[in-house]
Amino acid sequence: MQAKKASESLTVMNEMVLPNDTNVLNNLRGGMVLHWMDVAAAIAAQRHSNRIVVTASVDNVSFQKPIKLGDVVTIRAQISRSFRTSMEVHLTVYTENIPSGSRVKCNDAFYTFVALDSQGSPVEVPEVIPETELEKSLFDGALRRRQLRLILAGKMKPDEATELKALFDR
Amino acid sequence: MQAKKASESLTVMNEMVLPNDTNVLNNLRGGMVLHWMDVAAAIAAQRHSNRIVVTASVDNVSFQKPIKLGDVVTIRAQISRSFRTSMEVHLTVYTENIPSGSRVKCNDAFYTFVALDSQGSPVEVPEVIPETELEKSLFDGALRRRQLRLILAGKMKPDEATELKALFDR
Amino acid sequence: MQAKKASESLTVMNEMVLPNDTNVLNNLRGGMVLHWMDVAAAIAAQRHSNRIVVTASVDNVSFQKPIKLGDVVTIRAQISRSFRTSMEVHLTVYTENIPSGSRVKCNDAFYTFVALDSQGSPVEVPEVIPETELEKSLFDGALRRRQLRLILAGKMKPDEATELKALFDR
Amino acid sequence: MQAKKASESLTVMNEMVLPNDTNVLNNLRGGMVLHWMDVAAAIAAQRHSNRIVVTASVDNVSFQKPIKLGDVVTIRAQISRSFRTSMEVHLTVYTENIPSGSRVKCNDAFYTFVALDSQGSPVEVPEVIPETELEKSLFDGALRRRQLRLILAGKMKPDEATELKALFDR
Amino acid sequence: MQAKKASESLTVMNEMVLPNDTNVLNNLRGGMVLHWMDVAAAIAAQRHSNRIVVTASVDNVSFQKPIKLGDVVTIRAQISRSFRTSMEVHLTVYTENIPSGSRVKCNDAFYTFVALDSQGSPVEVPEVIPETELEKSLFDGALRRRQLRLILAGKMKPDEATELKALFDR
Amino acid sequence: MQAKKASESLTVMNEMVLPNDTNVLNNLRGGMVLHWMDVAAAIAAQRHSNRIVVTASVDNVSFQKPIKLGDVVTIRAQISRSFRTSMEVHLTVYTENIPSGSRVKCNDAFYTFVALDSQGSPVEVPEVIPETELEKSLFDGALRRRQLRLILAGKMKPDEATELKALFDR
Repeated sequence: MQAKKASESLTVMNEMVLPNDTNVLNNLRGGMVLHWMDVAAAIAAQRHSNRIVVTASVDNVSFQKPIKLGDVVTIRAQISRSFRTSMEVHLTVYTENIPSGSRVKCNDAFYTFVALDSQGSPVEVPEVIPETELEKSLFDGALRRRQLRLILAGKMKPDEATELKALFDR
Repeated sequence: MQAKKASESLTVMNEMVLPNDTNVLNNLRGGMVLHWMDVAAAIAAQRHSNRIVVTASVDNVSFQKPIKLGDVVTIRAQISRSFRTSMEVHLTVYTENIPSGSRVKCNDAFYTFVALDSQGSPVEVPEVIPETELEKSLFDGALRRRQLRLILAGKMKPDEATELKALFDR
Repeated sequence: MQAKKASESLTVMNEMVLPNDTNVLNNLRGGMVLHWMDVAAAIAAQRHSNRIVVTASVDNVSFQKPIKLGDVVTIRAQISRSFRTSMEVHLTVYTENIPSGSRVKCNDAFYTFVALDSQGSPVEVPEVIPETELEKSLFDGALRRRQLRLILAGKMKPDEATELKALFDR
Repeated sequence: MQAKKASESLTVMNEMVLPNDTNVLNNLRGGMVLHWMDVAAAIAAQRHSNRIVVTASVDNVSFQKPIKLGDVVTIRAQISRSFRTSMEVHLTVYTENIPSGSRVKCNDAFYTFVALDSQGSPVEVPEVIPETELEKSLFDGALRRRQLRLILAGKMKPDEATELKALFDR
Repeated sequence: MQAKKASESLTVMNEMVLPNDTNVLNNLRGGMVLHWMDVAAAIAAQRHSNRIVVTASVDNVSFQKPIKLGDVVTIRAQISRSFRTSMEVHLTVYTENIPSGSRVKCNDAFYTFVALDSQGSPVEVPEVIPETELEKSLFDGALRRRQLRLILAGKMKPDEATELKALFDR
Repeated sequence: MQAKKASESLTVMNEMVLPNDTNVLNNLRGGMVLHWMDVAAAIAAQRHSNRIVVTASVDNVSFQKPIKLGDVVTIRAQISRSFRTSMEVHLTVYTENIPSGSRVKCNDAFYTFVALDSQGSPVEVPEVIPETELEKSLFDGALRRRQLRLILAGKMKPDEATELKALFDR
C-alpha cells in the first residue's frame, strides 16, 4: 500500500452561521461546531484511505471566542498521521466577520477515525508523508496524543506512556 | 449564593436514530452524538446556574461501539463540579436495541460550560453538593481533569499540574 | 407473553426551543410539540413491545400556555394500557424557564400505537401492569378513551359506547 | 368586521416523503404528518384572520393507512367556523403513489387556532360564510366538536354539552 | 402512450418563511426558494409521467422582491411541454404578507426533468395537451427555451438555434 | 473604493451527500445542489464586498451526471465581475467518489448578488481584478451574460444586447 502526502487529504469547509445554529445570545452553539468538524474530518480521512470511515474519538476541544450569527466559519481538516487502521485528523477553525473582513483562528482539534471495509471490519490505511514543518510537527506529536487517548479510554497505564510521561518530567 | 445538589441538574434525553443521522453503513455519525450531548449538557448546566450558558470545552470522547439506524440513544447529563463561573457536566450515553431490549453503555464524556449574564459576561454559579459515591468521585476527579484541560489549551505548564502529575508518578 | 409494568416504558425527553421551532412571536409552534410527543411516545411503545410501532391515533390535545424561545420542554411518556396489538401512551409536557427556574405543566395527551412484525403486520403486545394510583386511573380510563376514538373514527356507534355513555348520564 | 367565505382561506400543501420523515419500515412517521398539518392549518387561519395565530388544540386524529417513502402527501386546509377569537380549521390528507397514480384519502382532522395582536393578546376574527353542502355541514358540526374539546380540557361539564349529549341519546 | 392535459400535473405548495430560511436582514435566502421550487416541480413532473424524475436543468431565475420572515410563499408548478424523455415545468412564485393580506407575484421559472425507469435509465413520457391561452403560449415558447438551454450547455451551436435566433433578428 | 483581486473571494465548500438529500434512486436532488451553491456564492460575494448580500438571479444550470448517496460534493465559488451594486459569482461543482477516488466536474453556474447596507438599500461594491486566463475570460463574458439576464427578466430588448447578439451573428 502506497504512502500518501498529508496535503492530498486537505478538506476546506465554509459554513454561514444561521439562526438555528445559535443560542439565545445569538452565539453559535458548541455542538454545531463539533458536528461540522466531524463532517470535515471524515471527508479528509476518506480521501486519505478511499474507505468508509467512522469516528473513533475526539480530543479535548476548547472554545475560546464566541462566534456570532451571520459570521462565516471556515474549517480546514488534514490528516496528520495514520496507525494501521486508524487516522488522526488535524482541524483548524477560523471565524470571519464579514463587515470588518477580520479572520480569527478559533481553535485546533484532533479527531480520530477508523477505516472500514464494506462489511464494516477495520482495514489497513496508507501511511502519511508529512512535508511542511507544521505537518512534521503534527506527525511527531501524534504518538503522544495517541498515548493520552489510550490512557483516557482506560486502555493504557499512565506509566507505560513513555512519550507522554516525558512531558511531565521536563 | 446557595450550593445546589448535583442531582438537581439531572437531564435525560432520548433520541431515535433516523436515516439522516447515519453514514453509508447505517451507523450513527459521531458528530450527531457530540451535538446531542452538547444540548443535554447545556440544559443540565442551565438548570444548575439558572443562566444562559456557552460551551467552553469538551474533553476527550471515544466511541467504542457502532450505534445502528433505529436504535434509541439515551443521554444522561449531570453537573459534577463548578469553578466560580464554569461548570463541568458529566455525560453517559447508552444505546438500546428495541427488538432485543438490550441496553449498553457507549461512552462517558465531560463538557464544560461558562455561565453568562444577559450582557454576555461570565457570572458566578452555585457550588455543587455531591451525594452518592459516584457523584463524590466525579467531584474529586474534576480538579485533575481541569488541569489537563488547562495544559492542553496551553494555559498551564505540565509541572504545575500537581494533581495530574501524581497520576504519572504512581 | 409476559405482562410488563407500566413504569418500564417510561421515556423522558428534554428539548431546548430553538429559533426554527418558533413563530413570529417567538413562541414554540404547536406542530413541533406534536412531533416531539410522537417520538417520545413511540420510544415508550417500543420499549413495552420490543417491536417497531406506528402511530395509530392522537387524542385531543390542547395547548394552554405559550412556550417561549430558549425554554426547556420536558416530555414524559409512559404506556397506560395495551389492547391486543395496540398500546395507549400517556404523555405529560412540562416547560421550564431557565432564568426563573419555574417548571409548569403545559398539557396531557394520549397517543395510540400499533406494534408490527418485520413484515409490517400487526402483532400481539404484552399486557400492562399499573402500580401507582395514577397508573391505575389511566389504565381504567383507557377503555372510555378507546370508545371515544372508535366513535370519532366512525368505527363504533355512540350508543354502543357503554363506558363513555355513562359519562353523559351522570 | 366583515365576514369572509370559508373558501378564501383554502391552503393546499404538497410534500414528498423523504428518508428522514420515515421509520425503519420506510413508512412516514405520524409526528411529521401532525407537524405538516399544523403548518397548513396555521396558514389557512392566518388567511382568514390576517393575524398571527397560535395552535390552541388538535382534535382526535387517526392514521388509517401507511404512507410510504417517495409518496406525495397532499394536505388541504380550510376554515370551518370561527368563535370570537378562535378558528376551527378542517384538514383533509391525501396520499398519492406516483408509479400507480392512485390517490387515496388518509384522514380528516380539526385544528383550532387563536388569533393574536402584535402584543400577543387574543383578538376578534371575522365570521365564516359557508357555501357548499360540505362547508355547511362542517360549520354546523363545529359547535358539537367545540363542546367535546371543552369537556376534554376540563372546561365544561358533560351534562352542559347539549349538542354533544344529543349524539348519545339518539 | 396517451397524452395528458397540462392541468393534470398542477402542484401547489405553501410554505411559511421560518427563521432558518432567512439571512441576517430577515429576508428569505434565494437558495431556499430554488430548493422549494425543485420539490414542487419534481412533483408536477412525477404526476405527468408517473415516473421517478431527476432535475436536468434550471433556467435563469431572477429574484425581484425581498420575501420577509413570517410571509407565506405559494409556488404553483405545472408541466408546459414534454420532449420524449424530458419535461419542462413552469413555476410561478407568489408571496403573501399576512397582516396586509396582499399577494404579489415574485417570479417565474422553468425547471426541466428527465423521467427514469426503476433501473435509472431515461424513459419516454406522455405528450402534453395545452388548453388555456397561457398553457398554449408556454407550450410554444418551450422550443425556444430548449434551444437556449442546449446552447448554454454547449450542446448546440448558436446559429442552429433557428427559433431562438429569430428573437434577435426581429 | 479599492478594487480587489478575484481570487480573494475564493470560497470552497465540501458536503457529504446524506440520505435526506437524495431521491428514491439514492441520487442527490437538484434542489439541494442549488441551495448549497447559493450559500457558497453568497459567502464569496460577502468576502468581495464586506456587505450583506441577497441573491438577485441564477443563470441557467444544467445537471449532467447523477451524484450518489455517500459522494462528496465540492463547490468552488469566486467572484467574476462586479457591476456597481451587483456581483456575478462563478461556481464549479465537482463530485468525488470515495472508494474509487475519482473526481469529476459536474457543472458550472453563475449566481448574481446585490450588496446591501444595514438598512437594506443597494450599495456600491469594489471592482474586480482578474489575474489568470480563466479569470479574464470570465470577466469578459460577464457583459454578455448580463445582457442575457436582462432580456430574460424583460428589462432589455434583444436587439439592444449588442454583445450577446454578436454570438448569433457569428
